[in-house]
Amino acid sequence: MAKGNDQYVQNITPQSEDFSRWYIDVIQKADLMDYAPVRGCIVFKPDGYELWEACQRELDRRFKETGHRNAYFPLFIPESFFEKEKEHVEGFNPELPWVTEAGGEKLEERLAVRPTSETVIGHMYARWIQSYRDLPVKINQWANVVRWEKRTLPFLRTSEFLWQEGHTAHATAEEAESETRMILDLYTDFVEGVLAIPVYRGQKTPSEKFAGAVHTYSIEAMMKDGKALQAGTSHYMGQNFAKGFDIQYLDRDNTLKHVFTTSWGVSTRILGAIIMVHGDDRGLALPPLIAPKQVVIIPIGPKKERDRVVAHAAALHQQLADRNIRVTMDDREDLSPGWKFNEYEMRGIPVRLEIGPRDMEKGQVVLVRRDTGEKLFVPEGELTERLPRLLEEIQHNMFDKAKKFRDDHSHVAHSMEELTHIVRDQKGFALAGWCGDEVCEKAVKEQAGATSRNIPFDPPETLSTCVSCGKSAAHSVWFAKAY
Amino acid sequence: MAKGNDQYVQNITPQSEDFSRWYIDVIQKADLMDYAPVRGCIVFKPDGYELWEACQRELDRRFKETGHRNAYFPLFIPESFFEKEKEHVEGFNPELPWVTEAGGEKLEERLAVRPTSETVIGHMYARWIQSYRDLPVKINQWANVVRWEKRTLPFLRTSEFLWQEGHTAHATAEEAESETRMILDLYTDFVEGVLAIPVYRGQKTPSEKFAGAVHTYSIEAMMKDGKALQAGTSHYMGQNFAKGFDIQYLDRDNTLKHVFTTSWGVSTRILGAIIMVHGDDRGLALPPLIAPKQVVIIPIGPKKERDRVVAHAAALHQQLADRNIRVTMDDREDLSPGWKFNEYEMRGIPVRLEIGPRDMEKGQVVLVRRDTGEKLFVPEGELTERLPRLLEEIQHNMFDKAKKFRDDHSHVAHSMEELTHIVRDQKGFALAGWCGDEVCEKAVKEQAGATSRNIPFDPPETLSTCVSCGKSAAHSVWFAKAY
Repeated sequence: MAKGNDQYVQNITPQSEDFSRWYIDVIQKADLMDYAPVRGCIVFKPDGYELWEACQRELDRRFKETGHRNAYFPLFIPESFFEKEKEHVEGFNPELPWVTEAGGEKLEERLAVRPTSETVIGHMYARWIQSYRDLPVKINQWANVVRWEKRTLPFLRTSEFLWQEGHTAHATAEEAESETRMILDLYTDFVEGVLAIPVYRGQKTPSEKFAGAVHTYSIEAMMKDGKALQAGTSHYMGQNFAKGFDIQYLDRDNTLKHVFTTSWGVSTRILGAIIMVHGDDRGLALPPLIAPKQVVIIPIGPKKERDRVVAHAAALHQQLADRNIRVTMDDREDLSPGWKFNEYEMRGIPVRLEIGPRDMEKGQVVLVRRDTGEKLFVPEGELTERLPRLLEEIQHNMFDKAKKFRDDHSHVAHSMEELTHIVRDQKGFALAGWCGDEVCEKAVKEQAGATSRNIPFDPPETLSTCVSCGKSAAHSVWFAKAY
Repeated sequence: MAKGNDQYVQNITPQSEDFSRWYIDVIQKADLMDYAPVRGCIVFKPDGYELWEACQRELDRRFKETGHRNAYFPLFIPESFFEKEKEHVEGFNPELPWVTEAGGEKLEERLAVRPTSETVIGHMYARWIQSYRDLPVKINQWANVVRWEKRTLPFLRTSEFLWQEGHTAHATAEEAESETRMILDLYTDFVEGVLAIPVYRGQKTPSEKFAGAVHTYSIEAMMKDGKALQAGTSHYMGQNFAKGFDIQYLDRDNTLKHVFTTSWGVSTRILGAIIMVHGDDRGLALPPLIAPKQVVIIPIGPKKERDRVVAHAAALHQQLADRNIRVTMDDREDLSPGWKFNEYEMRGIPVRLEIGPRDMEKGQVVLVRRDTGEKLFVPEGELTERLPRLLEEIQHNMFDKAKKFRDDHSHVAHSMEELTHIVRDQKGFALAGWCGDEVCEKAVKEQAGATSRNIPFDPPETLSTCVSCGKSAAHSVWFAKAY
């Protein structure tokens, strides 16, 4: 990383030239990941993992505040478990890695490396749940899961990834449904409020729902190339898994009843969303609430003044750290200020604080916003007041910018031609009427290359005819190309 | 769990009758774990996982304070990687589970499910480390690992377990060695200071060191059955892995040099140590610093007074929570106070706070210590001052008690007969002289059933002759039966 001169070599492909290459350039140059020596797997390098830790902290707090507790279930799942829910086995079987030998012996029953844990958790819940008094059960797990994907892309689709999976069991359908919706609200609050990523909330069509669910809710975000990224899902399972795994409880009326279950998850693919929603040709841009470092202090000025400036900068550093601002300082001598400016812009730190001898004379510091490039001259005495407000402003501005971009690239399509034009040429989301027939959903996929994202709870418009067959529309659906 | 009457059924086998059954009784009754449907695997239930989360928080903070950063490396390791360090492959090969099929196809190269990550991390470090400027690299990983063990025991030895593994690379042997020792200090600080478990610090004999290490340091704790539990290890690898994986850097003198590496880990087996060091016939006993709940409030008194007492108890709850005391309240109506007293003693909560109408009249509360059973009548006005001091006192008392037990069960053995008597009949640790020959170490194992635990840094006595061959002793060694 270190370079002995002012020559900062950006080496990031512009987004407009090749968005995919821009993405790979940024995540490698910003040191977020590296390719692992196993097909489709990546290494989360410290800067990338730190972002995930920040997401974990925010989500974990919200899960606990809403009455969930963490637990840990085994990585391996016996093959027979997958047979117990028909849709589930069909959905996941093609992607499973199998352990067939262990401890020098061939196993009697193959063990799948978990792609998700509904089955093994269902098995345990059947043991733990006996009476209505045991309900609800509200458990979350932080874990690694594996799906042997054909096409992989760092963070977005990797053979192994990290996630949280919540699994709850309830006495009634209403309670389970309400949990499913509450979690979607929680995810929305996190993704919009913390990650500054606006989402469309809605229900998946049957062909896009989770394998084994009655229905799936999702939040869908738009990347800067106009493609969709499913940022979180919440599944209502009804009694599908309860029946498959015999999860029954003795109710107050002394009869045995099957429980109703839910599951829900957010994975490390969310890191890809942060990058592709906020990043630009200069690199990463991190919303202040999730940025591991919110401010970088860079002391500047001639050599002979150096000690004095660095000492002053260190005092400012302490002042800000005391106010719980996540701050770092780069006082390396062998790198020019210009090099550092570029470097921390590329790494996406929301605010740069410059301080030099002349600023010290004037009793001021210079703040530079990563989101707008704006330069602010702030009297030192006001710094600890202004900075938290500035971070808040940046947070809101980043959300607003992302929302404007998304809204500008969301259009209503009244015909297949319009829909195709929107997703292919305008690179955006198309809202279109849909009759509810899977055939028409497939037609959109074939003709426009777009999949249904979700049936939004609050569509900006209600469409009356199906974009494919022209019959009466049952739903207004967001269609888009998707990661 | 809920029972409608005063009949608390303990169902815990006394330690003196059968320590192993006591252990299993306690961890199941205290709801820490359940057996998983996969051989040798367990489920960490919420109360068990919460204890691990508390350990994670304490360790993670210490790692970060000492300049380490977290990262995440892949679960799967190509078979060929294990061949690159000869001792390492011999040590781990017999315990590996193998993925041989994935995504519907047979894999060209088998993938091991990681038993530890030196190999894959070595591969990545070889890519990341080019220059002396890249050193040191100090990374930690929180992960699941798998070792297909023949005999398993919940928490202590399971096929899959959770742990942290630190991996560092340094320019010099001295720096790597100093890291190895610093981490042993960090582990000691955590295990003695937070878990209230006294440890013997020392170096493993060559036959007991990590497969591939130059040497291994360990901290060894004594369980209440006199058996040893290795609570943490820190390995100095020298250049073994650096040479196996070609981790080289260009030094200031413009020559290529191999780095020196370390690795170190603490796993979920530490939960077993907490249970087996502090637990007693009434169940778990958790040191206040690690207890997820430090105080349980139980309102008591006749029905007609109930609302008044519960409201008052809730106010106390708030008061303590505001002081960052981890407090919970059990105001369930269908359970008697006596049942609750037993239940929370069994779950190991350090302090029980009882409050009833008569206490309210007197303006006092009753505090009951889990560690001594002592009852304290404390004026309400003094509660927020007294309670933190009391928790501190309990913490220290638990350490002192554990240390006294350990010291009382640690003896010097001058002969094989004495050694055998100490570990078999007195159920303790034996310090004995050892010539340094593996043959004599094996003789101890065969005759006394004890393995060498470590060569302590500060032996209570220095022994001059080998306990087995009678020749001059090179070291004084702790021998014990071990988990």
